[in-house]
Amino acid sequence: MNTADLRNIPLFKNCKDVFFKNIENDTQQRPHDKGQILFVHGDEAERFYLIKNGWVKLFRETLDGAQAVVDILPAGHIFGETSIFENDTYPYSAEVVEPSKIQSFSLGQLKKEIENNNKLALSMLSSMARYRRQQDTEIEHLSIQNASQRIGCFLLRLTNQDEAGPLTIHLPYDKTLVASRLGIQPETFSRALAKLKDKTGIHVKGATIQIDSPNQLTEYSCTACSSKFPCKDIKAVK
Amino acid sequence: MNTADLRNIPLFKNCKDVFFKNIENDTQQRPHDKGQILFVHGDEAERFYLIKNGWVKLFRETLDGAQAVVDILPAGHIFGETSIFENDTYPYSAEVVEPSKIQSFSLGQLKKEIENNNKLALSMLSSMARYRRQQDTEIEHLSIQNASQRIGCFLLRLTNQDEAGPLTIHLPYDKTLVASRLGIQPETFSRALAKLKDKTGIHVKGATIQIDSPNQLTEYSCTACSSKFPCKDIKAVK
Repeated sequence: MNTADLRNIPLFKNCKDVFFKNIENDTQQRPHDKGQILFVHGDEAERFYLIKNGWVKLFRETLDGAQAVVDILPAGHIFGETSIFENDTYPYSAEVVEPSKIQSFSLGQLKKEIENNNKLALSMLSSMARYRRQQDTEIEHLSIQNASQRIGCFLLRLTNQDEAGPLTIHLPYDKTLVASRLGIQPETFSRALAKLKDKTGIHVKGATIQIDSPNQLTEYSCTACSSKFPCKDIKAVK
Repeated sequence: MNTADLRNIPLFKNCKDVFFKNIENDTQQRPHDKGQILFVHGDEAERFYLIKNGWVKLFRETLDGAQAVVDILPAGHIFGETSIFENDTYPYSAEVVEPSKIQSFSLGQLKKEIENNNKLALSMLSSMARYRRQQDTEIEHLSIQNASQRIGCFLLRLTNQDEAGPLTIHLPYDKTLVASRLGIQPETFSRALAKLKDKTGIHVKGATIQIDSPNQLTEYSCTACSSKFPCKDIKAVK
């Protein structure tokens, strides 16, 4: 199995050929249907994953059955890799939310490489520091922004962040998932979206959204944020 | 200046004597008054810090002046160290919130050691993975728990997590700070605390709280959480 996609991920740029050679013997690639569970929070971890296409939701469940969405990842992202620092158990569950093609690799090989290749350890530290900053921003948004501002921020991240408008964008997955990704109760979401339309003049038709003035959206959402727009301090949504 | 306290931090357990020798030449220790700003989000980072005693608040400010509390750290914790993965700028501001004694060290020396000592890089990866899990839990709580449950969780973390009760605990800092640490608006905090009293039978007198039944508190707060009580998936508050 080919490891070309893994080589393209910045995290692995300092890995030697021998690492890719070792890991490719045990690489798997599979198609997955919507709804498929890849692993469950607390499971013993033996593989890490790379999304070739599709979408994967990482989540955790509370004792009383509510679901907290940790992340919803698009193609090109890896997940499960931090299990090697978590006593080899997955720190979340993973569910395929759109038909997807996913590669998986040996965590044991990755662990061995990190222990022997300090450059990979340093790349991973940079990547985790970036993720930490993104989580700080997310905690900040949940603490300070109202639900409409959080939706506005999500929409801006679906744009290229540098166009004047009008722009047309499409929600990458259904609104229920967008709501739980943003920590908004489903029953609050419609009301929050209506308020956002009212405040910023966006038009919503199903999953298609027209933004006449990205500036107006930025003014509404980004003044309640510590990062400057265009911003990198937030997780990718496309 | 003595680096004994730094040696006691698990993160540095694999560092060689020569690292501590190099770093101690440039170690400083200062008393700080409440309200003192140590550095500002975005400042060029040259030092990292260790709290010998007192409390330090890490925070970020939005464009319209609201404050998001990233963390409130007690004695024994370090901060500012991840700046070496953030283009040598601080990813948050730091303010002393109680009179404190704080040591500071050269970030350059730390960077050099991480680049040359893979064991330190691996310790740092473990420490960042733990922090990431704690942030995931925090995001989960902000998304799923109500304000009263979040206060309940905070109080449980002030106990030893294994006593039957009744217990008496003291808030480590003032209620306004507890509120902003938990992402609760000050005007909502009293109402949420009243609801918590009603639901779990705790008694509140100023900063002193009596918990007759920790079990009742656990049942109320921890059922809306994906971690098992007693739990480690959450940041220290004492």
